Amino acid sequence: MKTTVAVFGLGSMGYGMAQSCLRAGLDVYGFDVAAEPVARFAADGGKTGPLAEVAPTLGAAVVVVLNAAQVESVLFGSDGIVPHLQAGTVVLACATVPPEFARDMAARCAAAGVLYLDAPISGGSVKAAEGRLSIMASGSAEAFAAAETILNATSETVFRLGDAAGAGSAMKAVNQLLAGVHIATMAEALTFGVTQGIAPETFVNVITRCAGTSWMLENRAPHIVAGDYTPHSQVTIWPKDLGIVLETAKASGFQAPITETALAQYMRAVDMGLGGEDDAAVAKVYAEQAGVSLPEGTS
Amino acid sequence: MKTTVAVFGLGSMGYGMAQSCLRAGLDVYGFDVAAEPVARFAADGGKTGPLAEVAPTLGAAVVVVLNAAQVESVLFGSDGIVPHLQAGTVVLACATVPPEFARDMAARCAAAGVLYLDAPISGGSVKAAEGRLSIMASGSAEAFAAAETILNATSETVFRLGDAAGAGSAMKAVNQLLAGVHIATMAEALTFGVTQGIAPETFVNVITRCAGTSWMLENRAPHIVAGDYTPHSQVTIWPKDLGIVLETAKASGFQAPITETALAQYMRAVDMGLGGEDDAAVAKVYAEQAGVSLPEGTS
Repeated sequence: MKTTVAVFGLGSMGYGMAQSCLRAGLDVYGFDVAAEPVARFAADGGKTGPLAEVAPTLGAAVVVVLNAAQVESVLFGSDGIVPHLQAGTVVLACATVPPEFARDMAARCAAAGVLYLDAPISGGSVKAAEGRLSIMASGSAEAFAAAETILNATSETVFRLGDAAGAGSAMKAVNQLLAGVHIATMAEALTFGVTQGIAPETFVNVITRCAGTSWMLENRAPHIVAGDYTPHSQVTIWPKDLGIVLETAKASGFQAPITETALAQYMRAVDMGLGGEDDAAVAKVYAEQAGVSLPEGTS
Repeated sequence: MKTTVAVFGLGSMGYGMAQSCLRAGLDVYGFDVAAEPVARFAADGGKTGPLAEVAPTLGAAVVVVLNAAQVESVLFGSDGIVPHLQAGTVVLACATVPPEFARDMAARCAAAGVLYLDAPISGGSVKAAEGRLSIMASGSAEAFAAAETILNATSETVFRLGDAAGAGSAMKAVNQLLAGVHIATMAEALTFGVTQGIAPETFVNVITRCAGTSWMLENRAPHIVAGDYTPHSQVTIWPKDLGIVLETAKASGFQAPITETALAQYMRAVDMGLGGEDDAAVAKVYAEQAGVSLPEGTS
């Protein structure tokens, strides 16, 4: 029988995952609080219908919203789907959330007979649209089996991290710690270089071939060279995601001083009104402090 | 005429560079405060002789000592070589030093008619032995020309960073900022993962394929997985090199809070008696704080 799936949250990541499911020949519903992406997805071949009628027909529900509060609202809020899902339907929870929250959601789904795959995603909107995400997944064998069609349609790599919810979100938190610190450190190093007479373009040319490089440096430093802060990933992601890291760390008695320091720099960027810019804009915090200029875009 | 070169400092980096010069067919003298590497190098085909007699015969002097004080001692100390060098001889200064110090040394060499190439190296002892270092070089066209034979013999990549001493050392400081922070951040993330039930081996397997990866993570995290802290590069390097970064930053009015925080973690490692271990041992600072265990080696 053809799998019917609904994607909740049609931002850039969710929209791409919904498109990937369509390409795989699935029946795909798209839901979002905004009307525009829902209408656009219907024009792309997506299905529409009243949530209460659609939910019982679903084999899988992919939740790609921004944060834990939104996940809880989609699953268990006043219009929550879980009470309407059939037993054995799987929820793929793709937002970055605390591991403890993922365990709680999984338990509440289990109480309703619904399977839960803790399935945070990585890779960005381009890979989402191409069905080439990385998924850091954990959950029961039943949840993995019920989710397999969706995982195949949306991802290039599935990391199978254990048989209980929480492990996927824990690994995502570890990755976000590194990614968030690496972007801020790139900004610190690049702007320090400017104070020493090193042009940002020279920084990129040299450092990407040296031991100081990182995946994030190679991805984000060119935005500073171009002076282009079009938000591929916004500054505001980091107060949220590093906040999850620190909340989780604190609950385990773990001190993460480098993460705390990077978070403070992102908060300064938000205070400067840069929250909606590309996260490479954290370099502007350093530039303003030091009184140096970064490249300006031509647009 | 065959170039005669002396290498000052026969630690792992200097010894490798001296060997590379030998392989290139040059006449190579090796000097060190320790007798053992000098004798070993002589057995490998190196030349020996009294410094005051050797110095006037040199086309190039490669200085590969640990820090600025040792560079100054080699060049201008009581047994310093500069007064004995012929005009036009080039000094390749390879230690990691403050840019301002490099400018000062270059000026003092110039006053003696000696050329100076600010030439910090990167790549580790294996690449040093293979003649495949990266060199971040700046200096006059005359200095580059006089150093060309040595650069060819010892390096895979020469970054030509300008016509004055200081630019090479500035880029090295930028690289060390990134490399030092990335190792400490790897330690923070890996140990945080351990508190969340993620095994170090799983951390390496997943993160090296995700956006959170860095060159240093891929190089150093396997040491923690193996529980092997044989010092390929010691913890004590980082108080020195991040100290240079912060001293240089301060002189320019630049605040580097992430670097400061990483430095504090390395200082804690030194306080724990780990200064002589591989720099991946900074993870032990986090593990002790959190009360978790890291893998132990089998040796």
